[in-house]
Amino acid sequence: MRIVVYGLGIIGASLAAALKRAGHTVLGKNRSEEAISYALAHDMISAPAEGYEGAEAVFLALPPAVTMRELDRGEFPAGALVADICGVKGEIEKLVFGKPRRYRYVGLHPMAGKEKSGIKVADADLFKGKNLVITVCPNTDEGALALAEGLAREIGFGRIVRCSAAEHDRKIALTSQLAHIVSNAYIRSPEARGIAGFTGGSFQDMTRVGGVDEELWSELYLLNRENLLRETEGLISRLSEVASALGAGDGEALKSCLKEGRLAHEAYFSEK
Amino acid sequence: MRIVVYGLGIIGASLAAALKRAGHTVLGKNRSEEAISYALAHDMISAPAEGYEGAEAVFLALPPAVTMRELDRGEFPAGALVADICGVKGEIEKLVFGKPRRYRYVGLHPMAGKEKSGIKVADADLFKGKNLVITVCPNTDEGALALAEGLAREIGFGRIVRCSAAEHDRKIALTSQLAHIVSNAYIRSPEARGIAGFTGGSFQDMTRVGGVDEELWSELYLLNRENLLRETEGLISRLSEVASALGAGDGEALKSCLKEGRLAHEAYFSEK
Repeated sequence: MRIVVYGLGIIGASLAAALKRAGHTVLGKNRSEEAISYALAHDMISAPAEGYEGAEAVFLALPPAVTMRELDRGEFPAGALVADICGVKGEIEKLVFGKPRRYRYVGLHPMAGKEKSGIKVADADLFKGKNLVITVCPNTDEGALALAEGLAREIGFGRIVRCSAAEHDRKIALTSQLAHIVSNAYIRSPEARGIAGFTGGSFQDMTRVGGVDEELWSELYLLNRENLLRETEGLISRLSEVASALGAGDGEALKSCLKEGRLAHEAYFSEK
Repeated sequence: MRIVVYGLGIIGASLAAALKRAGHTVLGKNRSEEAISYALAHDMISAPAEGYEGAEAVFLALPPAVTMRELDRGEFPAGALVADICGVKGEIEKLVFGKPRRYRYVGLHPMAGKEKSGIKVADADLFKGKNLVITVCPNTDEGALALAEGLAREIGFGRIVRCSAAEHDRKIALTSQLAHIVSNAYIRSPEARGIAGFTGGSFQDMTRVGGVDEELWSELYLLNRENLLRETEGLISRLSEVASALGAGDGEALKSCLKEGRLAHEAYFSEK
């Protein structure tokens, strides 16, 4: 199949490399020439692409604003599957389905990434066994959906979940966006200077994604403001309970917070 | 060397197994018989111990209150190195050095563990390449310190840092205790039910240690109340900054928080 991947950062280039390895003709499109050369040199794309000519499938692996611009312009071949990989979906579906489109849109959110970004950390195995969330609505084309899922399986995704954009945005606020906010706020502690030698796995895990690109992530956060604000405030309120118990030296209150968390932790793992 | 390890949970049994593998005679002491049998069957100890007779070194791998009881009783052979592995040190040093002791105390904090506890997840390689914090004060015996460090190297620790109990407790509040509080509070979100399929590495990392034992950890938290309260409140305040920016839809304020975190993240990795 002839596929165009626009945006050769970590996600786009990994997608391209995985699709190419699966036997597809993958054309790469990117603002900077450098990533194109890198992708060619590392066998991640078959050739560069100017536009979308002849593409049966298009993956937009771009920040939300650029993704929405491309989706709105809609210069894709008629009938092409067009999928984005943005971390928020409500606003995107509103735009896409706000008027008739000749392309067939499916929203994807690969639950995969690394703490670094850019083509140099891209990897054809990035999606192996990972979760993929696909957003669907009454306007979603069944054929496009099946095609997207088929390609996703070819490149190794593990569990594939379908849901509405609203459910996606609500859940992702907790499972991805808030984690990045907390990690970032955590490492801002004044005590974080000079702690090499004092850290173990829990600190490393807590701060791993703390260095995210502020341009991209603030854009994502603002597109999911309401959900993210609710989750952030919820966490603040649970942390404040712990702080009150600590302040009062109230061991029972402390234990009761911790126990609630332990039970939630067990429930999560039993559902997994 | 003849060594007694009291407490065969994950840390104690891992210590015992690593010391035995390094060629020492390791005697295991534990409240329940079951762990003793398990340790014998899995070659983690040489034999069970009733008391501390003949021990040149004793490791107490017990919760803080029991550790302090043992250290206060002080029924160790004269001149023996006695080390604990508790996550807080100020209160322990105060107790130990509050009167003359015939044993030689050194405080250890191995920055190693797993999200599960108990002897069944113990592992002779648990400490390989990990950080070890050793607390010292003017009363610390130089010979005991050298012995503790030597044994620590034998069982594979990577970086070994010496510091005061006050510095340890201040830093550990951030690098370990707060991480466990956050992870626990995080998973308590009502949205955490039914999210299998929606998670990626950032959620898994954020919640990994969320299920800690509330008895042990509330004890540790209360022994380091002041430091931990300061760190918890600091984090709440940084998260509140983000929440305000989100609430106001203020992209610039959001970016400025995130950027501060990114720079702190870079600084941490450059110091590491």
